[in-house]
Amino acid sequence: MSSERLIYLPLGGAGEIGMNAYVYGYGKPGKERLIVVDLGVAFPDMDTSPGVDLILPDIAWLKERRDQIEAVFVTHAHEDHVGAVAHTYEDLKVPIYARNFTANIARRKMEEYGHPEDAVKTVGPWPHQQGAGPFMVGFLPISHSIPESSALVIDTPDGRVIHSGDFKIDLTPGVGEPFDPALWSEVCKDGVKALICDSTNVFSPEPGRSEATLGPAIEELVSNAAGMVVATTFASNVARVQTLAMAAQKSGRSVVLLGRAMRRMVEAALETGVMKDFPKVVSPEDARAIPRENLMLLVTGSQGERRAASAQLARGKYQGMELKEGDLFLFSSKTIPGNEKGVIRIINQFSEMGVDVVDDSNGKYHVSGHANRPDLETLHDVVKPQVVIPMHGEHRHLREHVKLAETRGMQGVLAVNGMMIDLSGNKPKVTEYVETGRTYLDGSVQVGALDGVVRDRIRMALNGHVTVTVILDEEDEPLGDPWVDCMGLPETGRNNAPLVDVLEQDLSQFLGRAKAATLRDDSKLNDELRRLTRQSAQNEIGKKPEVTVVVSRLS
Amino acid sequence: MSSERLIYLPLGGAGEIGMNAYVYGYGKPGKERLIVVDLGVAFPDMDTSPGVDLILPDIAWLKERRDQIEAVFVTHAHEDHVGAVAHTYEDLKVPIYARNFTANIARRKMEEYGHPEDAVKTVGPWPHQQGAGPFMVGFLPISHSIPESSALVIDTPDGRVIHSGDFKIDLTPGVGEPFDPALWSEVCKDGVKALICDSTNVFSPEPGRSEATLGPAIEELVSNAAGMVVATTFASNVARVQTLAMAAQKSGRSVVLLGRAMRRMVEAALETGVMKDFPKVVSPEDARAIPRENLMLLVTGSQGERRAASAQLARGKYQGMELKEGDLFLFSSKTIPGNEKGVIRIINQFSEMGVDVVDDSNGKYHVSGHANRPDLETLHDVVKPQVVIPMHGEHRHLREHVKLAETRGMQGVLAVNGMMIDLSGNKPKVTEYVETGRTYLDGSVQVGALDGVVRDRIRMALNGHVTVTVILDEEDEPLGDPWVDCMGLPETGRNNAPLVDVLEQDLSQFLGRAKAATLRDDSKLNDELRRLTRQSAQNEIGKKPEVTVVVSRLS
Repeated sequence: MSSERLIYLPLGGAGEIGMNAYVYGYGKPGKERLIVVDLGVAFPDMDTSPGVDLILPDIAWLKERRDQIEAVFVTHAHEDHVGAVAHTYEDLKVPIYARNFTANIARRKMEEYGHPEDAVKTVGPWPHQQGAGPFMVGFLPISHSIPESSALVIDTPDGRVIHSGDFKIDLTPGVGEPFDPALWSEVCKDGVKALICDSTNVFSPEPGRSEATLGPAIEELVSNAAGMVVATTFASNVARVQTLAMAAQKSGRSVVLLGRAMRRMVEAALETGVMKDFPKVVSPEDARAIPRENLMLLVTGSQGERRAASAQLARGKYQGMELKEGDLFLFSSKTIPGNEKGVIRIINQFSEMGVDVVDDSNGKYHVSGHANRPDLETLHDVVKPQVVIPMHGEHRHLREHVKLAETRGMQGVLAVNGMMIDLSGNKPKVTEYVETGRTYLDGSVQVGALDGVVRDRIRMALNGHVTVTVILDEEDEPLGDPWVDCMGLPETGRNNAPLVDVLEQDLSQFLGRAKAATLRDDSKLNDELRRLTRQSAQNEIGKKPEVTVVVSRLS
Repeated sequence: MSSERLIYLPLGGAGEIGMNAYVYGYGKPGKERLIVVDLGVAFPDMDTSPGVDLILPDIAWLKERRDQIEAVFVTHAHEDHVGAVAHTYEDLKVPIYARNFTANIARRKMEEYGHPEDAVKTVGPWPHQQGAGPFMVGFLPISHSIPESSALVIDTPDGRVIHSGDFKIDLTPGVGEPFDPALWSEVCKDGVKALICDSTNVFSPEPGRSEATLGPAIEELVSNAAGMVVATTFASNVARVQTLAMAAQKSGRSVVLLGRAMRRMVEAALETGVMKDFPKVVSPEDARAIPRENLMLLVTGSQGERRAASAQLARGKYQGMELKEGDLFLFSSKTIPGNEKGVIRIINQFSEMGVDVVDDSNGKYHVSGHANRPDLETLHDVVKPQVVIPMHGEHRHLREHVKLAETRGMQGVLAVNGMMIDLSGNKPKVTEYVETGRTYLDGSVQVGALDGVVRDRIRMALNGHVTVTVILDEEDEPLGDPWVDCMGLPETGRNNAPLVDVLEQDLSQFLGRAKAATLRDDSKLNDELRRLTRQSAQNEIGKKPEVTVVVSRLS
């Protein structure tokens, strides 16, 4: 088959939430011209990726096709969509297109990693279209929890495809553009081949609420507070930051921004003009002269991140600011699964200070940025695509979204990372399985998730580590006793004998009895010493540690 | 002051959820006769306690006062209340009193660890009272999510104290005794000095629902399912297990129990007579002959535990049983904070199999075992204590519960682990701060949480590990080159040079230049080699690993 085809290939974000990276291609099989939509990161955790700094999509497939790639398009400035643009630039070296606010954030990243900022090109919203090989791509505004979020209208020789990006249906989103049903209907009226669609909230049965519904509740809370008020939310949720700041202003409070991301996002929003009337901000130094009941701090760390402002305030002072009994702390945010313990730790630390903590458990102080089930139906109805391909979701979300589309008379295609879908013709089909995965940014190095590096770390965390050192003389005879060092293991085991002594004794006995053939054979000797160390530790402390054996020969 | 006093001292469970251990004492200060209420465990996690098997309360304070301890009383058979009885028996060696079902579970634990089962004494419910030094203790039935849960009525020379244990207000709990307001009023009518009270659900504003409300919804779900149904809940929630089994029976399904805890709990419930009419159970072997639409599996692992039945089924086969497209999996449970990722992993694995997963997000298939805020008020009103001392909660729960008591005209005392409260007289006061903490059961050894063992493991998980070996000859001159082994670190760093080579080269250069004084001094040489290794790794891979230095001298 040599005719041209239109393909869709998720490399990240389909079958997980985070690390978005989607590829579209058009051309002869294997020769398609490609565009990449979003290049985001995911965040590591102790359970699966201890010590890792960031998780990037594995773009090996793209690297091998570097010459086929026309451009990267970034739908919005959330880390899971834009976070990897700098880390992957060296490998791709193609222009990065984004709207003004998103481009501002992307350029800061490029600068931080020493890449040319002008690789990021600002493009205007629909009806502007940017050409990229066989594609014409337009940024169609849609509401979300960050300014200038856009769906992409991807015109191909095979028809129009809509990539929703992250979205909600919000007619009054505060900062950022409202969802405009008339504009969307106009764009979609001549038929849409496929809608590649956000699936995050497919299990939420009620229609989503507008950002505008939060203002009155937050204002009431802030104006009734007796002491200082501290509020946290994602800094990138500029509309929320503004809602919070306006509540401060209305209750006569000066606003202090704490945390790098908070200052950076407000700066970017003002620079790009997406935010116009933000109250005057007071520095932490100047805030000290202001009575605490006239202060409101907007701080980073809504997910309990240990180094962010809220966690630091929970542990004590941060930039000279400190909470006290009678102050109020507001989580204007939802806790992302996996972050509960960190958030709860902070709440308890504030509780110990006598600070009242208010969170979103009553639904008054936060709304989601993603379309709930009825809102997905609204978008389906406006776009009327031939096919719905769910993305931005774990497997359960994608599967449910496919079901939803099918019950509503559309085709639904379940495509997880690595499934290349051929969208040509009337019946999309899986045409290839591409190897995908995760790359870890670990310190300054990128390592594959399956390289074993992290696996070894997890093993050391679970089992501890023993170093065994043996020196053999020119005759392959042990010179002195073996030497044992332990890390992450109890000092004493059964019968209160020091673990190191027991291990050294057992190893020493073994060496005394070992055959010359074993002593001469590095690999055999290593294996035996390792096995014996683990066995001996198991007897003594009920654990089999990881073992490094160093055999030194004087020969 | 030498008069006698009544004291309350939480050693675990106050300021955290889990690891319950409360002490009551009566006598001259420092000479009090003591009883211990509950000896439970908490569960480790990768973030704070990798490799640890169980977390026990630190009972050093009790060990030093072994001669003053009369007995242990266990309110109910949940792990966070009974889990540590066997692990602490050697140190305490006092009788353990519990009701029949709880005693059955406790004896299984004693047997497992080789302790005398007859140390566990069965006592009947109120009005029976068990003497223990100056105390008379009665087990007053109260509803919870496990059979025979009881509050303790602790009569002291200073008056009556009620220790609520874990409870909910349920008049129709299925298995187990209903809350009996008349009995409770009778017990409390002559005045209660203090109510030490469960605080878990103080933030839940609605009255709790009865276990009995679940039956119809679960029956409907199970009877409408087309394929096999698999349900998970805490095995110890015997009432729920029965509700699920009855739903199976009503829809003509045979019940299969999977997971050790599930079989063990049903066995204990039948042995002790707390459960009478459990449907006939089919073995996994026999189940293979039964059509899957006539099967219902009740399985362990509602919290996503990797080794439990539900996680194993999510990965593939377990005891010959396997889920398929069209089957239904029910979480009749709530996910405990911190366990979300494990549970979500399972849901996605089932989604990949085409299995429909139903959880409690709509509130139809699970009710909590703890008293919500209005139910706490109900208990306050029945008991009418002079003082409420909240327990079984994190700091935020205890603080809120104190506020609740105080707004309702009672005294409230916030006592966290280690605060000894003097309950004598009319105004309870903190009389002493006792050092408390956590002990880790790690393999077969108990280690202190602050001993550094786990800290070192976490560091290795975050930073990786390097072994550096250097041999010095009789003249303190390096013999050959230093040798480096890495674990949990990338193989190559900047410029793609092998990390090991770069480190060995840097260390070799250092040794070549090192002064004789450094080479002669073990401690100095160790420090320098460690520092240099970390610095060199930082340059190369952006990470400072943990380092074990082994210097061998031929002298």
